[in-house]
Amino acid sequence: MKTIAAALCVCTATVAFADEGMWTFDNFPSAAVQAKYGVTIDKAWLDHVRAGAVRVNGCSASLVSGDGLVLTNNHCVVSCSKDLSNAQNDYVKDGFSAAARKDERKCPGEQAEILESNTDVTARINAATAGKSGQAYVQARTAAIAVLEKESCAGKEYTHRCQVISLYDGGVDQLYTYRRYTDVRLVFAPEFQTAFFGGDPDNFNFPRYDLDFAYMRLYENDAPVKTPQHLTWNPAAPKAGETVFIAGNPGGTNRQLTETQLLRQRDVTLPMGLAMESELRGRYSRYAQESAEHARRVNDDLFYLENGIKVLRGQHAALTEPSLIAAQRKAETDLKAKIAANPKLAAETGDPWGDIDKALAASAALYHPYTFLEARAGGGSSLFGYARTLVRGAEEREKPNGERMPNFGDARLAQVERGLVAPRPVEMELEQLKLEFWLSKLREFLTADAPETALALGKDSPETLARKLTQSKLADPALRKALWEGGEKAIEASKDPLILYVRKIDARARELRKAYEDKVTGPIDRASERIAHARFQVYGTSVYPDATFSLRLSYGKIAGWNEPGKTIPPFTVFSGLFVRATGQPPFDLTARWAGAESKLNPNTVFDISSDNDIVGGNSGSPLLNAKGEVIGAVFDGNIHSLGGNYFFDPAMNRTVSVSTAAVTEALAKLYGRPDLIAELSAP
Amino acid sequence: MKTIAAALCVCTATVAFADEGMWTFDNFPSAAVQAKYGVTIDKAWLDHVRAGAVRVNGCSASLVSGDGLVLTNNHCVVSCSKDLSNAQNDYVKDGFSAAARKDERKCPGEQAEILESNTDVTARINAATAGKSGQAYVQARTAAIAVLEKESCAGKEYTHRCQVISLYDGGVDQLYTYRRYTDVRLVFAPEFQTAFFGGDPDNFNFPRYDLDFAYMRLYENDAPVKTPQHLTWNPAAPKAGETVFIAGNPGGTNRQLTETQLLRQRDVTLPMGLAMESELRGRYSRYAQESAEHARRVNDDLFYLENGIKVLRGQHAALTEPSLIAAQRKAETDLKAKIAANPKLAAETGDPWGDIDKALAASAALYHPYTFLEARAGGGSSLFGYARTLVRGAEEREKPNGERMPNFGDARLAQVERGLVAPRPVEMELEQLKLEFWLSKLREFLTADAPETALALGKDSPETLARKLTQSKLADPALRKALWEGGEKAIEASKDPLILYVRKIDARARELRKAYEDKVTGPIDRASERIAHARFQVYGTSVYPDATFSLRLSYGKIAGWNEPGKTIPPFTVFSGLFVRATGQPPFDLTARWAGAESKLNPNTVFDISSDNDIVGGNSGSPLLNAKGEVIGAVFDGNIHSLGGNYFFDPAMNRTVSVSTAAVTEALAKLYGRPDLIAELSAP
Repeated sequence: MKTIAAALCVCTATVAFADEGMWTFDNFPSAAVQAKYGVTIDKAWLDHVRAGAVRVNGCSASLVSGDGLVLTNNHCVVSCSKDLSNAQNDYVKDGFSAAARKDERKCPGEQAEILESNTDVTARINAATAGKSGQAYVQARTAAIAVLEKESCAGKEYTHRCQVISLYDGGVDQLYTYRRYTDVRLVFAPEFQTAFFGGDPDNFNFPRYDLDFAYMRLYENDAPVKTPQHLTWNPAAPKAGETVFIAGNPGGTNRQLTETQLLRQRDVTLPMGLAMESELRGRYSRYAQESAEHARRVNDDLFYLENGIKVLRGQHAALTEPSLIAAQRKAETDLKAKIAANPKLAAETGDPWGDIDKALAASAALYHPYTFLEARAGGGSSLFGYARTLVRGAEEREKPNGERMPNFGDARLAQVERGLVAPRPVEMELEQLKLEFWLSKLREFLTADAPETALALGKDSPETLARKLTQSKLADPALRKALWEGGEKAIEASKDPLILYVRKIDARARELRKAYEDKVTGPIDRASERIAHARFQVYGTSVYPDATFSLRLSYGKIAGWNEPGKTIPPFTVFSGLFVRATGQPPFDLTARWAGAESKLNPNTVFDISSDNDIVGGNSGSPLLNAKGEVIGAVFDGNIHSLGGNYFFDPAMNRTVSVSTAAVTEALAKLYGRPDLIAELSAP
Repeated sequence: MKTIAAALCVCTATVAFADEGMWTFDNFPSAAVQAKYGVTIDKAWLDHVRAGAVRVNGCSASLVSGDGLVLTNNHCVVSCSKDLSNAQNDYVKDGFSAAARKDERKCPGEQAEILESNTDVTARINAATAGKSGQAYVQARTAAIAVLEKESCAGKEYTHRCQVISLYDGGVDQLYTYRRYTDVRLVFAPEFQTAFFGGDPDNFNFPRYDLDFAYMRLYENDAPVKTPQHLTWNPAAPKAGETVFIAGNPGGTNRQLTETQLLRQRDVTLPMGLAMESELRGRYSRYAQESAEHARRVNDDLFYLENGIKVLRGQHAALTEPSLIAAQRKAETDLKAKIAANPKLAAETGDPWGDIDKALAASAALYHPYTFLEARAGGGSSLFGYARTLVRGAEEREKPNGERMPNFGDARLAQVERGLVAPRPVEMELEQLKLEFWLSKLREFLTADAPETALALGKDSPETLARKLTQSKLADPALRKALWEGGEKAIEASKDPLILYVRKIDARARELRKAYEDKVTGPIDRASERIAHARFQVYGTSVYPDATFSLRLSYGKIAGWNEPGKTIPPFTVFSGLFVRATGQPPFDLTARWAGAESKLNPNTVFDISSDNDIVGGNSGSPLLNAKGEVIGAVFDGNIHSLGGNYFFDPAMNRTVSVSTAAVTEALAKLYGRPDLIAELSAP
């Protein structure tokens, strides 16, 4: 399952092979597609698809009716289903089906964005950062972006989002303007077990039998948004070999890291991440076993965590293939030779590889303190996140727009506030679990004698401190709203234990952030930008930028692949589900499905494999045929797709989608929703 | 904490530098020690120390009185303390102090062994394996060892153990004959928190404040064994720079692995181990938090697990230092050059490095099935271990001695039976937890579609199958005894669910074992032996063999070390404990210690750092002065010692011991045991 996109990555350009590439709409290789597949992708096609493509929190989606109906994955709405549930109603387990529009329920904190335009702002950003390095560079860039975003959205802050997106590792900066919707309601979600049949064992595997789709609807002024530009829902399954496209928001790739950056990931970042997340998985698993209510509370966290662990394991496995590192080394050597052959370019470029090595060496001493006190502070606790946002928001808003931390620029404040006041339930036992895990790992990795450990723990144990902190009242959205609106004075007057705690550690956390930007991310961004610039000079726009959770289009064909000794076909059908079901989790069927075999056409195409190049963040993307019609919803990749963070393997890397055929058949025969089918079929 | 030794490792020779080396007693570098430290280590010294050195389950120890009193670590008796505890009496938490000899309690399954003699049997083993390879080689070697061990101990099976120990990676095989004691009783153990103050955060750290000692006593015929050969207890603390020795049983090192073997450990074995053990740690941690009784049940498992995780992390960190791999590559290149310069040796040696690479390539497909269905089957469940021993024991005993699996040779049966019938308590909830964790990881790593997953799980989930298997009655020692004695017929008649289950999967498990021996361990052992032989020809016995959990002597001096910006002194004293105590776990003091500061001499030397070369398995070893007197008990290494599996770093690698001074002071002032001090002081 691809799930939530990672944070925006530093990204660059590469030369594309086979059906490789997550292309921007303004640089789509239509000629190559025409030559290879005989399919014409013209501006009208691109404009139509772009207008129907939707970005939601961490996922992708598409407009599939004229009344604002949005298709995405069930795993993209599971947080919403969880937020709307309680001990009596479990919409994750049982699914959600709004019988009438009035029963459609707002997803707390959800938003939907549709790209309207993008313009190049590279020159302006470059002018602001010229001659700067380290933290000064980061700060100048942040300031230029804050100013640009604010002025571009001036007067339309409530309906639009203006976001500077860095492409080709900073070689190109673009201002993306989105139409934004902040009232997004849950319409339909199947049972979790139906969407995620096979659970973690089958995740990233194929053949697959998952009905991983869901519908939401855009609202404005309490009425559904009219969306005549919607894409056409085509319930007919595609054929093997058919040309297909995917429009969505791949979250982040690392296809242009230097060799030493890859080695750091292989030797430090990924093994540490795997061990930590595995330990947390153990705690969650045991917590879930304690009672059905504990299981309900933690299952969405556990699901995302297990998905992430499988991703990390696949990435680590890819990096331990010596051939990958060797290929990267060769690509680096080739580029260096081309740069050296051009004295002007060589002078402009300098030695960014050496600069990155120096930054990585400098990060050794900073990495753990920065990670635990700043980058991963709070360990995913919602309350901690609220407290930090409140404390920092109050402090940052006192400063001029151009001097604030990235998330507190004026153009982003409305979004921050919406996230803060969204009425999402807070599970206190899980807060306790997350906080004590974070604090115990902080002490473990920094050692008991580090000054940051003393600052974070004092004389407390992780468990006793977490108990004190979870006395916080920040679970109350009204209190959060009051503290946000009260600003510095309210924060300084607050006796809430988490507000007091964040205030205690924040100075050191900010110092670490500054030091890390100055010595690590600043120099690396600067150096990566120079590599990207050089690569751009050498290869031009015949290349695609690394993924940045912004709109991209990938092309390919319906295809399985070959494993040693066997051929994996490109489709599954409904009958296969009933063969695979054992009756035991995670291979069990819900009551609705257990007796349904005779009601369904057994040959209905269920899940589909295609060779498009996608990555996490693409979840929910429409799978499109040559006419631009929706024939599926992307929800996963195969196991070989996990190396896609670093490279695209055309022979093995596959995208997995649920077919519109399967969704239509299930809505009609099992879920009693002819009204939805009628809406999808309307012109 | 060094804790339990790993299984016997394949081991070879190296050139020793500085105070490096875990030397056999018959090849101790006395001349080098004389030259460097001016201390004379003659045959009388060596014989005296050897006679007072004791090997216990997974740990080391020493005789410290004429009445069979044995000094070891608290962490080496924690399993015994746990086994003697129940919900009413927690001897782990509260410690154990037998007021009189009649109160000393037998540790279930414990044994103690003192080395009497060792003789070279290389020629005989070589004759048996000549010309064989793969599984035939493994089988021939196993058979030759079984026959040798049986005939050597004939007539003294109940008082002696005969064990073939492979040194220098099979370059040398020796028959070690031990005097064996199987009635070993717990005499005294401090509170766990006193022995392990600082817990996992301080583990492998120094300065340290742990009173990690315990006493057991050897019994025969219900009376203490007379041990006039005991070592002298010297309660005076050593001085910085003083020459010291450690006699004990380092469990296993990997200092002679080839470069590709090291890379396999770095890229596959260690990251996978770290992730799995971390996840189990998470489950144990949460289980422990559920109630005080759950904590009591799991704390010893959790302790060993966390210790193991820290070891894995240290080993992984060592292997990701590029300099280590580079040094190993250079050593390999040098040896290859020396071999090539000697045509006869080159012909004998062939290309063992290439053979190892081939075996590693072959292991890729076998590693996970072999690991989960054979090597780690049962996931540490006691009941599963009993069932497998019973099923295999019945089958193997039907075969001639020379054709059995390694552990079922006649010479080893008595020990197997003792382990089987020892009345150790079985915690059923933990059995459930371990079995379901094992089964879920089996499915995860083999995938849901592997034939081994189908064999192991059928249509069950890990959880439901574990519930069925824990209906087993094998927790009853009498039932195990009956099944053992009943042999094949009893096993075939048994309806115990775990017996039935092990019988179901055993054929495939044995196939995997054979295939792994044939394609992986057999060829690697054979190749390692050839490398070792060649190294032996080139470097002779000026080298020490890798550790094999057999008796070794290491020399060195009392010394701290330097960290960037600070100097770590070689001692801690009692007063430091009270400074470090915060009142919160794991930095809390027991009630006995919390108010004890004024009763103790604050300047008593507590823990000691020395530069001896040791590794896991050395726990409990006596720290000896130049006169061969006991001045401490080894219980740990510093954080830099964790790379000691692969190399010895004389500048940073340190051994940590608890001083006899601290033990004596605590016994006298806090534990009211003048009788023990009197016994220790008697000549």
